[in-house]
Amino acid sequence: MKIGGTPYRTIWPNADGWSVTVIDQTALPHRFETMTLQSAEDCAQAIRAMVVRGAPLIGATAAYGLAMALRADPSDASLAAASALLAETRPTAINLRWALGEVAAAVRDLPPSARAAAAYARAAKLCEDDVETCRRIGENGLKLIEAAAGVKEAGATVNILTHCNAGWLGCVDWGTALAPIYMAHDKGLKLHVWVDETRPRNQGASLTAFELGAHGVPHTIVADNAGGHLMQAGLVDLCIVGTDRVTANGDVANKIGTYLKALAAKDNGVPFHVALPYSTIDWSMKAGVGAIPIEERSADEVLKMTGRLPDGSLATVEIAAPGSPAANPGFDVTPARLVTGFITERGNAPASEAGLLTLYPERRAS
Amino acid sequence: MKIGGTPYRTIWPNADGWSVTVIDQTALPHRFETMTLQSAEDCAQAIRAMVVRGAPLIGATAAYGLAMALRADPSDASLAAASALLAETRPTAINLRWALGEVAAAVRDLPPSARAAAAYARAAKLCEDDVETCRRIGENGLKLIEAAAGVKEAGATVNILTHCNAGWLGCVDWGTALAPIYMAHDKGLKLHVWVDETRPRNQGASLTAFELGAHGVPHTIVADNAGGHLMQAGLVDLCIVGTDRVTANGDVANKIGTYLKALAAKDNGVPFHVALPYSTIDWSMKAGVGAIPIEERSADEVLKMTGRLPDGSLATVEIAAPGSPAANPGFDVTPARLVTGFITERGNAPASEAGLLTLYPERRAS
Repeated sequence: MKIGGTPYRTIWPNADGWSVTVIDQTALPHRFETMTLQSAEDCAQAIRAMVVRGAPLIGATAAYGLAMALRADPSDASLAAASALLAETRPTAINLRWALGEVAAAVRDLPPSARAAAAYARAAKLCEDDVETCRRIGENGLKLIEAAAGVKEAGATVNILTHCNAGWLGCVDWGTALAPIYMAHDKGLKLHVWVDETRPRNQGASLTAFELGAHGVPHTIVADNAGGHLMQAGLVDLCIVGTDRVTANGDVANKIGTYLKALAAKDNGVPFHVALPYSTIDWSMKAGVGAIPIEERSADEVLKMTGRLPDGSLATVEIAAPGSPAANPGFDVTPARLVTGFITERGNAPASEAGLLTLYPERRAS
Repeated sequence: MKIGGTPYRTIWPNADGWSVTVIDQTALPHRFETMTLQSAEDCAQAIRAMVVRGAPLIGATAAYGLAMALRADPSDASLAAASALLAETRPTAINLRWALGEVAAAVRDLPPSARAAAAYARAAKLCEDDVETCRRIGENGLKLIEAAAGVKEAGATVNILTHCNAGWLGCVDWGTALAPIYMAHDKGLKLHVWVDETRPRNQGASLTAFELGAHGVPHTIVADNAGGHLMQAGLVDLCIVGTDRVTANGDVANKIGTYLKALAAKDNGVPFHVALPYSTIDWSMKAGVGAIPIEERSADEVLKMTGRLPDGSLATVEIAAPGSPAANPGFDVTPARLVTGFITERGNAPASEAGLLTLYPERRAS
């Protein structure tokens, strides 16, 4: 996607052949800055600090981190240590573990001298595949937006609500939930996106709004509290969100607050779609509610807020009553019964074990 | 209630016999400041700017505003103009219109020379009545908290979730939703309150947390997004919120986001109670969904945030992507079917027309 006319991905290998550069997403939307990652520890820290975030991008960064570790030390011990270091950075997103497994599988049987090159190649392919996967998710989701447009008056705007950021900033390019929106917009469909602010880290107000604004997609930021009212008032035609982990039965872990929007969508007959690549499916977990580990993040994310002062400099202010503690669960789990359907690189299907197996028949128990 | 050991109400008449002082709630939780109101326009501006907020306190302030207008000019024209001015400050809360009607009724048939004194007397009585009403709401709600404690292990903490601020800062004293919590705490019940931040104005993180902290009630601030997850995880025993208008069928207008919490409570079998004084019931409106006017507030409330810098001074920062617009509906309507029951000064009842008429039989059509 483009920023100021320049095409960008969220992560790219440098000319040195071994380090990578990423967009520092903690500086957005206030400043556009990049950061060079040179070691597995750099990559782990970038994931922990949410310099990079979004399930697919976390996976891509972890893959490069493992390659960097093998460049420094290609031993089995190094592979195991770096895998553990990177896997521990975020507990909820499954792509992270999937990507580490992919790189490990690609190098495990190779002699140490061949491992780094193979790991870099696997990481690069993983990124290319992610771009293609997201492009296909966009094409498949586009059909749903076109269908929504088809039941409205000709020329009426299709209103889509999204939560958090599942755009190209959360992937390598295109995004998951936002890919269909970009494709619909580029095709000339009239649409408007309600962007949930997404407290406490404000990924909606800072990243999704930034992305959509940069691409020229009409959008409006709303407090996370507003979505139920908007749906009740008939101002939302469909919801599309991303996910950090889908279990075999179709339960959806995603940014905290997603469950509340799914409840409101169900209560108002608004379709609620979840866009995901195959790597986000955790086939090993039968059901997600009460089972998917939910990351507890720092209370400071709730108690403090960073923004621009009138002179353009950044400041962090404490916003809550002094002395009051905060809790900060990062994700929630939306039961499959509230999800209208999945949008994947293979097509669209109901949010159920049967639906997933229609798309991924190779996962059927033999 | 006490702040730093000193008992306060949110509004009180001054020694001059005609002006009133209020706590400036836009300065909380960062600074404790008061403001003197000397005219109907002062009162209207204080309501508009949310120096005072909360349905009962808005009503009390409007009542004094009308008295001030009649002191300056006791004519019918002055009464009508000041009533209109004050009624237009906030569209959703019904107490405002109720309080203005009460004062107007008390003076309408009096000679102009007697009107100001009668209006001040009615406003003062309205405040005293509000304190007593809230005290009774507290006693009635206490029974529900005791019942919740009764079904838990002996000594286990009762976890209560609340949204926005329906505490003593929103009333004259005690509060509506928080009154039962104060009484339970004072009685020695072990409880803990999940305080919804309540974006975009953060009344939970700034006012409810401030109140509870000042009174020593254990509490934790959470992003508005978190409540669904907390309920799904079994961490909420009951919800108690206030309301700005209840229609004859039991639909509940309250701070934006309340509807989402009621949906989550229903989905998880968590009781969802709404605390209100009789003055919050709009008997003239049969049903609330799609009918109660929803105030649209400034986009700046979503796009900017005020807080404390490390040196203790206050700063306002822009938090969203530059150039992105925001929408800011201030309230939503929770359908009666999602509300477990009402807590009123007359007792507790189901959220339905029949339930309300049990408490207020004088409203039965003859």
